[in-house]
Amino acid sequence: MAAKITHFDIHDVRFPTSLTSDGTDAMNTSCDYSSAYIALRTSDPNLSGYGMTFTIGRGNDIVCSAISAVAQQLVGKDVEELFSYMGKTWSYLLGDSQLRWIGPEKGVIHIASGAVDNALWDMYARSRGKPLWKLVVDMTPEEMVRSTAFRYISDAITPEEALEMLKAREAGKKEREAKVREVGYPAYVTSAGWLGYDDEKVARLTKEAVLQGFNHFKMKVGQSLENDLRRAKIIRSIIDNPEYTTKAVDPESIEGKNAGPTGSVFMIDANQVWDVPEAIDYVRAMAEVKPWFIEEPTAPDDILGHATIRKALKPYGIGVATGEHGHNRILFKQLLQAQAIDVCQIDSCRLAGVTEVLSVLLMAAKFGVPVCPHAGGVGLCEYVIHLSLIDYIAVSGSMERNVLEYVDHLHEHFIYPCSINKDGRYNVPSQAGEGYSIQFKESAFEEFEYPQGRYWRGVLGKAKTNGANGTNGTNGTNGTNGTNGTNGTNGVAH
Amino acid sequence: MAAKITHFDIHDVRFPTSLTSDGTDAMNTSCDYSSAYIALRTSDPNLSGYGMTFTIGRGNDIVCSAISAVAQQLVGKDVEELFSYMGKTWSYLLGDSQLRWIGPEKGVIHIASGAVDNALWDMYARSRGKPLWKLVVDMTPEEMVRSTAFRYISDAITPEEALEMLKAREAGKKEREAKVREVGYPAYVTSAGWLGYDDEKVARLTKEAVLQGFNHFKMKVGQSLENDLRRAKIIRSIIDNPEYTTKAVDPESIEGKNAGPTGSVFMIDANQVWDVPEAIDYVRAMAEVKPWFIEEPTAPDDILGHATIRKALKPYGIGVATGEHGHNRILFKQLLQAQAIDVCQIDSCRLAGVTEVLSVLLMAAKFGVPVCPHAGGVGLCEYVIHLSLIDYIAVSGSMERNVLEYVDHLHEHFIYPCSINKDGRYNVPSQAGEGYSIQFKESAFEEFEYPQGRYWRGVLGKAKTNGANGTNGTNGTNGTNGTNGTNGTNGVAH
Repeated sequence: MAAKITHFDIHDVRFPTSLTSDGTDAMNTSCDYSSAYIALRTSDPNLSGYGMTFTIGRGNDIVCSAISAVAQQLVGKDVEELFSYMGKTWSYLLGDSQLRWIGPEKGVIHIASGAVDNALWDMYARSRGKPLWKLVVDMTPEEMVRSTAFRYISDAITPEEALEMLKAREAGKKEREAKVREVGYPAYVTSAGWLGYDDEKVARLTKEAVLQGFNHFKMKVGQSLENDLRRAKIIRSIIDNPEYTTKAVDPESIEGKNAGPTGSVFMIDANQVWDVPEAIDYVRAMAEVKPWFIEEPTAPDDILGHATIRKALKPYGIGVATGEHGHNRILFKQLLQAQAIDVCQIDSCRLAGVTEVLSVLLMAAKFGVPVCPHAGGVGLCEYVIHLSLIDYIAVSGSMERNVLEYVDHLHEHFIYPCSINKDGRYNVPSQAGEGYSIQFKESAFEEFEYPQGRYWRGVLGKAKTNGANGTNGTNGTNGTNGTNGTNGTNGVAH
Repeated sequence: MAAKITHFDIHDVRFPTSLTSDGTDAMNTSCDYSSAYIALRTSDPNLSGYGMTFTIGRGNDIVCSAISAVAQQLVGKDVEELFSYMGKTWSYLLGDSQLRWIGPEKGVIHIASGAVDNALWDMYARSRGKPLWKLVVDMTPEEMVRSTAFRYISDAITPEEALEMLKAREAGKKEREAKVREVGYPAYVTSAGWLGYDDEKVARLTKEAVLQGFNHFKMKVGQSLENDLRRAKIIRSIIDNPEYTTKAVDPESIEGKNAGPTGSVFMIDANQVWDVPEAIDYVRAMAEVKPWFIEEPTAPDDILGHATIRKALKPYGIGVATGEHGHNRILFKQLLQAQAIDVCQIDSCRLAGVTEVLSVLLMAAKFGVPVCPHAGGVGLCEYVIHLSLIDYIAVSGSMERNVLEYVDHLHEHFIYPCSINKDGRYNVPSQAGEGYSIQFKESAFEEFEYPQGRYWRGVLGKAKTNGANGTNGTNGTNGTNGTNGTNGTNGVAH
């Protein structure tokens, strides 16, 4: 008997990172890195699938409700039937017209769909005893195409074109897999440059990162040009210092062309803080610190705005990157069509899971734009190494031009945490049982489940618990579908 | 003492419209028109504000939770301070970085913000004893600019440009107000052409609409070209028949140029069902029935796709309309910049309320594109007549080129329902107490609040109530902020 999906557990997990200024930038001044998490259960007690989407605190409960509504559609389904045509499964998951209305394909309902799609991919990989990336790169080109979302992008790439591209990559797959297992996947560091850190902390963390083997460094900008220039110069003085820097990027690579004298690469990130004309002026004024790219110079939806900014910065040798808030493949299609970006920064769970990520990897490869996934937060690093491995081994075939964000936060809460090797590169996840690497330890729930985990009980105290009961009134309506009920109970249980 | 906002009540109201095929189209085959509704209360027992956003059923509870999270930010605020600078109030409402993350400015959190912003505008209008449209058109240009959201659109329109445009319209305001009070605002009919209706019902409803005085008729398309052409010809045979048609549109107006022999105008709406190349082929094949425009030919996010479709259909004399799923002013900015649309179809509560609607009205006027707001559903017709009056009297200055959707559903649940005059035009809302006209009768809650209203209790029965308790587990987490609690209680009370 094939396993069927029987029920699911949902967890609202929040880490109090706002206490340490981790994750502060010009737009997000206070973040509690959070996970809206689902465990999909089946009739096979040995087969579950774990998935999550990332938020920064308030609203994580709203996303949990949406995950419940989306996941409910899977209950009773045969898992092998779902796995056999993941593209179709994805269309089904996103196809409830009533739930679609409150997107469509964007915002809460879409990131919730991402958590569910990822949980299904995790289950699929576990069922085959492979890490997620390995499951996908071992697929035939035909299987990969069937696993991809093509609706609304056929004017940029058809399934037939995708098939041809993937077939052309078949030959070198084994060799690339062996290579990346040996050397690891290139990473870059964001942790040193949060806006909330003082100059001394930035300098210290930058030095540590250089000594760890990194040679890409990203700094947050946008609150004050004067401060940004001062901090950028501190970072450049360290990463350009031959005393600290021991290796260089390939001068022929895209980032190599933007590298400083020691081969180190510097990037800046404004987290959407500017209007288009402001962005151009501000970044031009930072040209002297030679950033490879400005990330999220303006609203993530502004395709034409990014194209305008890119054109204006080209003479200064500064590129444009965006995508961590790119809400679906249709946005990425247009960023590529409009030649608006130099670097495509997909997010593993703002896009609706692996199925939609594959769409974007294929389009980016077709348009020749490197994919450098967004990471950091909680769980994102665990996720994205899989995506970059798929991109390198099976899709774009290149890791020379790509670099994967790395932030050293909160990995300790995962059963299969990601890790970095001695050269500052991601290790390749390789345990048979790890799937998409996103399963939390039980201790994470015990401590940080919101609001009943040990930490939050301590912080929130008894004075406020009344409120909790109050809100149930509105949300309670949900349950009468008679569908979502089960999950709620589980939510409380942990 | 100025009034302060003290608390709010939230209602999840769902009408079982799926039972009658009302609202069926190629994408949305089953709709329960629903309202995620808020009543903002103040320390003045005579001053409340009502707002809602529209959904089509499942997920309405998720939007209610989001409304609660957004509205919580208003509790304790002085209403006059909020009213005095509505643009700033809007930025504040949308500025919580943690809630913003789960949009940003799109999907559930954005439509929830729309409900709250609209409730505040409703309260503002009631506090001045004016209908909403009248409050706005009586503002000085400076006040209107302060009431508009300009972030991320300054490359399309600056506050200074907006001020100049509004000043240029000042002279004719009184005259236009008098005129529209006399003749009403032009409307068009969608009710006749739902996909779920049979040919006989379509013919009958079309005839009724013609006799009622309408001369714009919209039909849903996209499931079958053959059926669509057959039904289109049925409609055309009625609206082009001089026996039935008694008046003609201005032949110099935009829609007049697309009118048939009797002056009647026909439009088609695909509700996002096609990819870009499909849309072009399908609509070209419908050229013989001479539609003024194809509405929502593809994904609402696809600015460049709409531009491509528009270019391809231009030789056939068919325009492109979209916007009912346009998620924010940044999308509309680009639709205008890319010359992707002939008609701009804003939605009153998918955009984040009146404040963001003003941004789009100003941009559309600057780019010379007529605004024909989306309506139908529940509450949308009540809302949009206000927006079209603002557009006509204070912004674009024209109602010859514009036409406002009208669907004759569910108006009976509102205290101040919209209405149509003998010429098939919207009457001007003119009661001092009606604000934004969106306040429900108590009977609507008693019957259709979900799941505790009389209708839903009857349908759902006792078998499923267990589930309701279950879900509370997950959602309960929200409350522990100690903030949202009050609302929950109210939610249950009704």
